[in-house]
Amino acid sequence: MTEKTTKKSKKDEEKADENVIFVGNKPPMSYVLAVVTQFNSNGSDRVILKARGRAISRAVDTAEIVRNKFMKDAKVKDIKIGTESMTNEEGRNSNVSSIEIYLTINT
Amino acid sequence: MTEKTTKKSKKDEEKADENVIFVGNKPPMSYVLAVVTQFNSNGSDRVILKARGRAISRAVDTAEIVRNKFMKDAKVKDIKIGTESMTNEEGRNSNVSSIEIYLTINT
Repeated sequence: MTEKTTKKSKKDEEKADENVIFVGNKPPMSYVLAVVTQFNSNGSDRVILKARGRAISRAVDTAEIVRNKFMKDAKVKDIKIGTESMTNEEGRNSNVSSIEIYLTINT
Repeated sequence: MTEKTTKKSKKDEEKADENVIFVGNKPPMSYVLAVVTQFNSNGSDRVILKARGRAISRAVDTAEIVRNKFMKDAKVKDIKIGTESMTNEEGRNSNVSSIEIYLTINT
């Protein structure tokens, strides 16, 4: 008996994009600073916040702090959620939720 | 000297809507079951998942599990994020992020 395994070919959307900020386990303010810097110093008109698992709520915190405290003209243009398949230390696959928050400012 | 305090009048959007499922600290499967029941037994064509703070990532998990495992025809129609002002046990105000995930099925 053979088992069928369907593999999703991972899209190459994780290309090096300097407008993408990955949100992890640091305090939210670290990421707020990164977003504001990206908008102000680097002249970007869009920033994408990406996060997985428990960091998802921190990504939302970051977007909200930027929008409410630092850059009132920043808008949430789009939010996407998805599922990523990850291999843990024991070599087993597990699914983890992900989020992408698209922030823009009018230039 | 008088301090100005601007109070945002809370919109009455939290009206009793049976299509709203509040995601808290239970295991994600509890909420998955609630969503599937809402769609299947109660004949709804839309369900709104709401969560605050750390439960935000669980709300995303719930939406993804419903969509990928149980109801392949369910779609994420819209996602909104916001900030809610809450009063903690000590009587101080703190801001907490919130999310609303709008799920729909074609009937």
